[in-house]
Order: sequence, then C-alpha cells, then structure tokens
Amino acid sequence: MTTLQEIMSPKSIAIVGASDNKARIGGRPLAHMIEQKFSGGIFPINPNRDTVQGIKAYSSLLDVKEDLDFILVAVPSQLVVSVLKQAVEKKAKTALIFSSGFSEIGGQGEIYQSQIKKISKDSGLRVIGPNCLGLFNSATNFYPTFTSTIDRATPRPGGISIASQSGAYGSHIYMVAHQRGLGIRYWMTTGNEVDLSVGETIQLMAEDPDVHSIMAYAESVKDGKQFTKALDTARSEKKPVIFMKVGRSEVGAAAANSHTASLAGEDAVYDEVLRAHGAYRVRSTEEMLDVAYATKPRIFPAGKNLGLVTISGGGGVLMADAAFDEGLTVGPMPEDAQDKLKELVPFASPMNPVDVTAQFFNDLSIVPKFTDLMLSRGGYDALIGFWTSVAGSPLLSKPLLSSLKHAMTGYEDKLFINCMVAPEEIVKTYENEGFLCIEDPTRAVVAMSALMFFGEKFNVNKIKKDFKKNKYFINNPQKKLNEIDCSEILRSANLPIVKSSRIENIEDVSSIYENDNNKYVMKILSADIQHKTDVGGVILNIENIDQAKEAFKKINKNVREKAPKAIIDGMMISPMIKGGIECILGAKIDPVFGPIVMFGLGGIYTEVMKDISFAEAPVSSKKAEKMISSLKSKDVFFGARGQPPVDIKSLIEAIVNLSNLIAANSDWVDQVEMNPILVSENRVVALDALIVTK
Amino acid sequence: MTTLQEIMSPKSIAIVGASDNKARIGGRPLAHMIEQKFSGGIFPINPNRDTVQGIKAYSSLLDVKEDLDFILVAVPSQLVVSVLKQAVEKKAKTALIFSSGFSEIGGQGEIYQSQIKKISKDSGLRVIGPNCLGLFNSATNFYPTFTSTIDRATPRPGGISIASQSGAYGSHIYMVAHQRGLGIRYWMTTGNEVDLSVGETIQLMAEDPDVHSIMAYAESVKDGKQFTKALDTARSEKKPVIFMKVGRSEVGAAAANSHTASLAGEDAVYDEVLRAHGAYRVRSTEEMLDVAYATKPRIFPAGKNLGLVTISGGGGVLMADAAFDEGLTVGPMPEDAQDKLKELVPFASPMNPVDVTAQFFNDLSIVPKFTDLMLSRGGYDALIGFWTSVAGSPLLSKPLLSSLKHAMTGYEDKLFINCMVAPEEIVKTYENEGFLCIEDPTRAVVAMSALMFFGEKFNVNKIKKDFKKNKYFINNPQKKLNEIDCSEILRSANLPIVKSSRIENIEDVSSIYENDNNKYVMKILSADIQHKTDVGGVILNIENIDQAKEAFKKINKNVREKAPKAIIDGMMISPMIKGGIECILGAKIDPVFGPIVMFGLGGIYTEVMKDISFAEAPVSSKKAEKMISSLKSKDVFFGARGQPPVDIKSLIEAIVNLSNLIAANSDWVDQVEMNPILVSENRVVALDALIVTK
Repeated sequence: MTTLQEIMSPKSIAIVGASDNKARIGGRPLAHMIEQKFSGGIFPINPNRDTVQGIKAYSSLLDVKEDLDFILVAVPSQLVVSVLKQAVEKKAKTALIFSSGFSEIGGQGEIYQSQIKKISKDSGLRVIGPNCLGLFNSATNFYPTFTSTIDRATPRPGGISIASQSGAYGSHIYMVAHQRGLGIRYWMTTGNEVDLSVGETIQLMAEDPDVHSIMAYAESVKDGKQFTKALDTARSEKKPVIFMKVGRSEVGAAAANSHTASLAGEDAVYDEVLRAHGAYRVRSTEEMLDVAYATKPRIFPAGKNLGLVTISGGGGVLMADAAFDEGLTVGPMPEDAQDKLKELVPFASPMNPVDVTAQFFNDLSIVPKFTDLMLSRGGYDALIGFWTSVAGSPLLSKPLLSSLKHAMTGYEDKLFINCMVAPEEIVKTYENEGFLCIEDPTRAVVAMSALMFFGEKFNVNKIKKDFKKNKYFINNPQKKLNEIDCSEILRSANLPIVKSSRIENIEDVSSIYENDNNKYVMKILSADIQHKTDVGGVILNIENIDQAKEAFKKINKNVREKAPKAIIDGMMISPMIKGGIECILGAKIDPVFGPIVMFGLGGIYTEVMKDISFAEAPVSSKKAEKMISSLKSKDVFFGARGQPPVDIKSLIEAIVNLSNLIAANSDWVDQVEMNPILVSENRVVALDALIVTK
Repeated sequence: MTTLQEIMSPKSIAIVGASDNKARIGGRPLAHMIEQKFSGGIFPINPNRDTVQGIKAYSSLLDVKEDLDFILVAVPSQLVVSVLKQAVEKKAKTALIFSSGFSEIGGQGEIYQSQIKKISKDSGLRVIGPNCLGLFNSATNFYPTFTSTIDRATPRPGGISIASQSGAYGSHIYMVAHQRGLGIRYWMTTGNEVDLSVGETIQLMAEDPDVHSIMAYAESVKDGKQFTKALDTARSEKKPVIFMKVGRSEVGAAAANSHTASLAGEDAVYDEVLRAHGAYRVRSTEEMLDVAYATKPRIFPAGKNLGLVTISGGGGVLMADAAFDEGLTVGPMPEDAQDKLKELVPFASPMNPVDVTAQFFNDLSIVPKFTDLMLSRGGYDALIGFWTSVAGSPLLSKPLLSSLKHAMTGYEDKLFINCMVAPEEIVKTYENEGFLCIEDPTRAVVAMSALMFFGEKFNVNKIKKDFKKNKYFINNPQKKLNEIDCSEILRSANLPIVKSSRIENIEDVSSIYENDNNKYVMKILSADIQHKTDVGGVILNIENIDQAKEAFKKINKNVREKAPKAIIDGMMISPMIKGGIECILGAKIDPVFGPIVMFGLGGIYTEVMKDISFAEAPVSSKKAEKMISSLKSKDVFFGARGQPPVDIKSLIEAIVNLSNLIAANSDWVDQVEMNPILVSENRVVALDALIVTK
C-alpha cells in the first residue's frame, strides 16, 4: 500500500529534461526547490550539460549512483516510455509526467499512454499524469510542479490539501486559497490519471495525519469503487471533502469530455454518490473556499437549527431566506426567552432572527446577554452574527470581540460565524480568537450549511450490512426476454407487477373473464418488437370475451402485416388498472458507480420535471424512504394538504427489492424499468416492466 | 412634482435636536457636514445652547429668519408632530425624521405616524422616515444621516445610487460598494415610508441625469402602481435597477413583517413584477455588488449567447455549467472557424468554451487571434475570459492587457469580463482600460447574465396598448354566486368552461340525455354550501336517465339532512370530461400589485410542484405564451419528446380573456379559479370554476 508520505516526502528527486532556463517547464521545479531549499537530493538529468542551474547534471537516470525515489519527467511524449523503464530499473517509487501528447490527443498518444499504464501495473511504479502540472508538499519544500502560482505565493503551513484533475484549475484554487489566507499542505494534480487518480489521491490524503480538510476538483471519475471508498475513509476520519464536480450542463459535459478524454457519468448520479458518501458538492470556487475556510475550527454542528443574531433587521431577513434555500431550520426562541430578550431591549425582534437593534451601539453588553440566551435556551446548533461594518469600526471592533468571546465562553463546541465588513487586520483579531468571519451574509449561511452537512454525515455510524448476493441471485435466462418473462422475473423478486397472462390460442381468452369484470389490455408478445403500438400490436379497453376474441384476431393480422419477420411468443392480456400516482421505478448499471436504483414521478413528468431520486444499490428501507422524501413531490407521497398518504411500506419494499435484484445480478442485468408503477393509498403496482440484459 | 435635486440639494438644512456630542445621533450629521464642508446653510436647533459644534444654535425652527429647505428631525417621537408643523410654517420642502417609536411599535406610535402622514399630505411637505437612518448626496457633501459607515468611508464620485428601506442594510450595501471601489452618488434610506417610499425614490433616481444605476433593497412595497411606474421609468432611461427583495422564505417573511410593520406580498408575484418591469432581482448582496460593478461600462448585450475563452479547460467547463444555470446559451463556434483555431493551436478546444491551452504562455498573440475569431465568427453577444492568476503575474499581466485591448478594437460594443486573480493595482490597470474584472468565474457568469437581462429589457420597445376596460366590463351581479352563475359569467367572457345545466325538477333531467351518451356529474347548487362533497351533494358517473333521477332524489335528501338551512338554487348537471393535462387557471387582486392572472400545473401538483406563472393583468397573447413557456413543465405543453403539443392557441386565449376579466372588473371580482382546466391536443376546457366577489 502506497502512503502519501512515500509520494510526497521522497529522499531524492531526479528531473529528466531539467533545464537551465528557470522559466521553462523543465527549469521551474528545479529553480523553486533550490530557492525553497528542498533538503533531499536533487539530480538533474540532461545529456547536453554538466550542470543545470548550478547542480551537477547526469546524462540519464542510470548514470545516477544514488537511490532515486521520485522521477520528474519533462521530456517529449515519445521519450517518456524509455525514461519510465529506466525509472523502474532504478527502483524509483514514483514518476510524475509533465509531458502532454497522450490520450488527450488520441492516436499515437493513446498508445504511449497504454504503454505507461502497463509499465506502472507490471512494476508497481506509481505514475502521476501524464499531462500533469505536478504537485507540492509545502512542509518539505518539495515542488515538482511548473505552476507559476507558487512563484507569487509561497504556501503557508496548514492542514488543508488540494486534489485536482485539472492542473490549471488546481492552480486557480490554490491561488485563491492562498489569497484567502489558507495554509495548503499538499497540492496534487492528476492529469490523465494513468495510475494515480483523484479518487486515490483523496484516499491518501484521508489517511494522512497532517491533512484536516480536502478540496477536490474533478471532471469525471474512472473507478467508482475506489472513489467512494476514499470518501468513506475521509468521512470516518471526520475530514471534510469539499468537492467541485463540473460538467453538470450539456455544454459543460461536452467540454469536460474534450478536456480529459474520459466519459462523464450522469450528473444526478454523481450528485447522489457525493452526498451519500459525505462529500459536500460546491457550486462555485468561491463556495469551495468559504467552506474550506470554515472547516478551520473543525467544529461540525450536530443539527441544522440555526440561530441568527443581527443588528440589522434586513440582514436577518436575508439570512433567514438563505437558510431556507439551504434547507436549514431557523427555529423560534422559546416564548419565555423571547420575553427576557424583550426585557433587555423592548424594541428587539426576539423570535429568530434575533434583532438586537441599534441599541447595540449604546450598550455592547447586550450582545453576550442575547447570544447566551440564544445558546442556552434556543437550542441552536450554531450561530451567525451579522455585525456589518460596525465590527470594523475602530471604536467598536475590540469591545464587540470581547463581548463575543464572553458570550461564547462555555459554548466552545458551537460554531459562530461573524458577518463583518472590516479591514484585514481587524478580521485577523477575530480569527485569532477562533471566530470565523465571512463578509457576505448569504455566503456565511451557505458555508454554515456545509458544516452542518458534515456534522450530519460525520455523526452517522455507518454499519454496512453484508449484502447476501446469493439470496437475490437469479439465473441468467440467456434469452431475449418478452414482457411476460420480464414480469415473471420481477415477480419472483417480490416486485409488485400486474398479473398478466400469456395466451397462445384464441380460445384461451375465455378463462380470463370467468371471475372478473375488469377491462383488459391485449398486447403482442415478442422480444423482436420494441414499439408495439406502432405495429398495431396493442388494444385497450377490452370488456368481454367477444371483444377479446376480436382483438386477438386483429392484433395477429396487424403484426403479420407490419412485422412479418418478428418471432411471436403469443399474446399478453393484462387487467387495466387506474388510479394512483404515476411513477417510475428503475435500476441500471452506472458505468462508473455500478448498480443504481431510481424512483420518481412518472408519465409526462418524468423527463419534464426530472423529479427522480437515485441511490447506489442495494439500499436499506431507511435509504429507500429517504429517496422518496428527497423528491420535490414528496408531499404527494407522504400525504400532506388533505391527501391521504400512499402505501409507503409497499413502495419502500419495492425500491429495496429492485435494488437487491440489480445489485445481485449486475453480471447479466443492465437495466430494469417499471414504468408506469401506480402508487396509491392502498396499493403499489407496476403495469409494465422491462429488463434489458447485457 | 418633486425632483431628486429638490430633496438632495437643499440650500439650507436645520437640525432639530442638534447635539454638541459628535457621537450622538443629533451630533453626527452636523459633524460630518462641517468636516466635509457642506456649502449650504446649517441651522442647529437646540433650545438649551447658544452654539452647537461651534455653529450658532436656535431654540426653534421659527426663530430662524432665513429660508429653510431641509429639516432634519432628531427629537423623541412625541415631539415630532409639533416640529413638522413648524417646518410647514417655515415652508420647508423636506423633513427627514431619524426618530423611532412610530408604527413599528404600534399603539401611540401608530397615532403619531398617521398625524405625520396627514401633515405631509395636507401641506405638501415631503417627509422621509420616520425611523430612518437618513441619506446623503456625495456631490454636494450633504450628509443628513447618522450612519457610522461614512466616518470610515467617504463616498467616491460616481453614478450609482442606493435606495433602501432598511437603514442598517442600506449602510451595509454602501460599505461593501465602497470597498469594491464603487462611487455612490445618492444614498437614501426610507424607514417607515410615511411619505417617500422606496418606489418613489427609484422614480426620482431614474429621472435624475446624474444617476446611472440603482441598487435597491426592500422588504415590501406599499404602492404597487407607483413602484412599477418607477421601474418602467428606469427601464426607458436604460438605467439598471438591481433589486434585493427579501422575505422569500416563511421565516424571512415573518421577520420582515416584524421589522417594517407592513404586509409582505406573495413572493412569486414580486418576482414576476420585478422581472416584467425590467428590474434584476439578486439573491445575495455580493451578487448585487457584482452586477452594479458590471454596469459601469453601460454595455448591455443584445442577446444571451456567451463566448467563453479560457486557459484552463476546467475553468471553461465550470463557466459553461454556470451559464446553463443562468439560462444563457454557450453556442458552438462555426466549424470552419474551429478549424482556424485548430490551425493556430492544434491542441486547443475550439468549440466554446474555447480553450487556448498553456500555449498562451509561449505566445500571447494567440489571445487576440482567438478572441477576434470568436467575436467576428462566433456571433457571441459578450465574452468572458478566464485568465486566473496568470493575469496577475508581473511578467504577463501587461502583455495580456495589451493583447486584450488589441483584441477588442472594433468590438467596443461587446462586453468583456476578465476572470483574474491579481493584486488590486494590476486589476486597476485593466479596469482603467474599460475591462471588467471579477475574480470568481461563477460570479462573472452571473453578473454577465444580469447584464444580458438588462440588454433584453432595454431593447423591448414597450408600447402599452390602451386597455379598454369597458369592453370587458361585467355588471356586478350583487349576489352570492353559485356554480352556474360563475360558469355563465365566465362563458360570457369567452372562457372555456364545460356547459352545465341547472335543473329544478326531477323531470328536467330527461332532456339532458336526449342526444348525448356522456357520463354526467350532478351537484347541489347553493352558494351557502362550500364543501358539497361533505354533505353528500355530489354524485359522479351518472350514465342514464334512471340513474340521474335517483341521484337527484338522493342529493336532495342528503342536503336536507346535512345542510337544512342552506338556500338551494337547484341542481347542476355537467358532462364528465377526461383526458388532457390537469391545469389551474386563476386570477386575483394582489393587495400590492392589483389584478394578477396565473396559470400552471393543477391537481396534486399545484401546491407540491409550485409550477405556476404569474403576470399582471391584462396580458397580451405574447405574454400569455411566455407564461406557459416559463413553466418548468413547459415541454408538456409545447409537445417535446414525442408528445403532441396542446391546443396552445385556445390556452393563450383563455389566459388573455381571464386577464381582461379581472383587470376590467377588479371593483367587484376578488378572485377567479378555473380548476381543473383540462388542456389537451384539441381542447381547453375548465370543469369547475369559482368567482369570489369582494
């Protein structure tokens, strides 16, 4: 097993393609490590020179007598493979490849890349890149990177690390983090990810004791299992993973493909996987920085009830709106505590947001009194104080700070964010006392919601039950499945699907109407005919035996005319069921994350409203219920506004059972779609079902 | 008619309650105006002193011989009315009341406030406040405000003005605007708005030649007509109104009420009214500042096609995602232009986002070549360039800037935002050349979308047709309306509603089934019975005369038992119609904005999905179509994904007709609800309708 230490703290580094020109790609890392006094051995490789930047140069890796831990490769793509072979011979642990011209350009580049992959796999040499901007370890002054950002911004010490697929965007994140005053320990970009992926990078960071929080950027993930394992490790170590996954939009996803030469999975699935495994997905770089900044005190609130204290009614309303958008609770103060607040300041709004009013200017001692009541009586999980530029006033900033310190005494486990507009030196005095300061109130609320998300995720004791695959295993039928086949397979997996009958002869219909006065639908049964209506293969509203017989004849005639070559398995006849909410229940094998179950609104709303929940299969009953309750249309199911609730128990059972089916049979099932599935007060039943095999 | 000049550029100011203590509310404005050298006359009113802050003091307004334009009132609430009477006697134009203790505390405060209102109305004295933090005019050093922000931040010259209901939040906006380097001309807070409202303030600013852009903050609007007129004026003057309307959430709205003592209208209506009248609604203060900043060059793109040029593929993807979120187009470059880009840089992504790649470092001349091709061939309405910290590099920032200047020559009407991370002094060099610089790429895209919104709104030549009220006028029936009454009124207004019949006797049913084999529904007709099902007053699925007769008897019996006192108008019998999309079409009189028409998804989805469009009535056909196309579920109506489109023409007609009805009859109609209205391929028909009269 590789550790971050092995990669990031080598005893020696060789730079193949080292340049005397400090501005060139092969010169920059060398110049920087000399300047920053990297204490390990540095071995420039350049067959044309005796020294490079004043250090003895070698003509090849093999000329170096000493052990080489880390090989930095900055030569044209066609030379990289031979360099790596030498690296293996030298028993190096890691090779980092700056060079581009690999899978991102296709053709010969693709071939080179697969050769690199093979070398890495066969030899155990860890390879980073190719097409990679490099990495750094700020604690050891190890800078194998040609990013220009570090020339202008020498990293500060700190516990935040950055893992980025994109070098340029990774540099951008580093730069804004530095400007924000954050200390970055490890910075790693992964390029084409022939070996080390952003997923494994997160894993290594999660396992490293010096890393507190992880900022990550990815356009796509290649190995879903490794990726989710990394997120799980970070969560169990209570290390926030702050994730930017781009490519949400069509144009964005297309651009992401051209950029990284790999297939971007479905965004909704990424969204669910990140959330489920405890990574917070940000919507902008600024949000990423805010959240990373806010993880500094390492306090992750236990709940989502937010207390707001403000000196501006307007600021309070604005923050309450933002909290609503983020799904937080802004619960009211208990009435007797409100009375106490009113005693202190008669014009105060005591509900929450608690408005101290301008009274604050006359008597700062009301701040600790107010916050104390909020913390002791309001039951809030965290507070945000809106002090605007008043906190930046030379007269008030110090007394406010001591007031706040006084207020927080005894509540050290509660997170407190100050919204304040103040010069940097004043903000620093607050930060030095352990307070967080975010100028914009909306951003403060969003950062708080991220910390509450981590609080929730870190508090879950994830006991993963063994999934008994055998229990749900179904033999691969090894044939094209018609609708009756599909419905029988699903029924055998305890999935609710309408009982249809297969009839072969016109006489068989008689039995159907014996003890039933439902209307029926008749359909042609044929795995060869995809769109049955188009060939006249479906007749609805059949009320009696005579109509059934007529329908049988008519369908047969239609199909013989319009699809003469199709193999016909007979006819399917099913009762027509109405009523209930039209939903869709499905499952599929995601190319990245494997078995996925999905549930949501069906019919015309499926594609239009996109109100669908996804989850990795198998799911527990609890998770299935969460899938339903995370729908925008959840009230339709749980029975708000005078509607009775649906049969949630059966619905949950159906979701769980389908998730077990796809999880246990992913070797031959590719996709299952139960659409429509009617969900009503006393019944859950699918009218149609489709299994796509591999 | 008042002008902004009259209020904001008085020749003299009296300060009633002037204090010698520069820290007190009555001392601050005086101190500030002395320090900033306000050139008009200053008359402190303080009966206890001969001078205040070195200036001769008077014991009352009436002791001042000179004319007084502007009266600043900083005395306890119980003294304010008598001061205002003196102000009227002195023929002052404006009185600004700092004092609190009015409608925001109720009781006696309420009474004082209505007295102030009467004085203002009777005399024509313009009153600002009470409970108001004041205002300033930075061009004349006129500072009747006790905000502490101006002590720390003397306003810069500029064309942006701020109108805010909240004093504290208005100060916050000012402070962050100042920090952002923005020059603020007028800053006005309106407090309890007994006379001057935020709406009229916007009107005055829109009419003032020195104002270029308006930032506004409101918790609620009192006079909808005045407000929308103000927005219309700003739009026709091509002055962006950047609006923060808080109170979106339940808790937020509740807090807004307690804070301003006025009823917050329905948020979705505010949202529509702001958009319709060309004001851009921001979601955060930071967004407000970004947009205000971006209005500086006063370029408002003509369309929404955004070109993205980047040196980081990741940055490009991220901006494309953000553009998608904002509803912008990121259209591809024409193929031959893509080929040209590829010729320049073989590894470039030429689609859009256009990725210049690291090649940029070697040859900056590709920047103008790329942007020129994008501007000349891509047909983009505006560009964003993502240069990250490279633009901040001492080596590259200048050449990049000249490169960009070169690129933009000939495209001076195109807006260009640079995303760059750079020291302030470098950013300034870009801004001085007319470029906008926003560090965060997501924020840059959002600001761009706001400018494109203004571009769209400013280009609309709003020709308001005269609305012929008479044409749609319906006589007030002056009685409680039963369902037949309602449906007849609506049918007379050309609204599609199912034809129901009223029957009085059991024999009348016969005629119904003569030439029809629909199923029917029978309902008790009574304006006294609200919930007809609850009293057994509704029977469905009546198939023939016999069933109809039986139903008639049964309903009569049920109602006689369960609602013996109700006045019965007979029975209503209507055909049962199925099929189509269940929608809701309604109209109401909004307490702030008057007649409103609404349309959206009906049935269980109305409240759950909240997919409803609002518009001020009357609407044009074009606006009605826009209402449909702005629904999340729009594809359901316009027929995407294999579904046929619905009968859009009839649907539009129905929306227009209902909007005319509510607009012409708002003196007696309070609300109309056609629910459900079934919308299908070949028909639009409401099954039920309700008119609520005033």
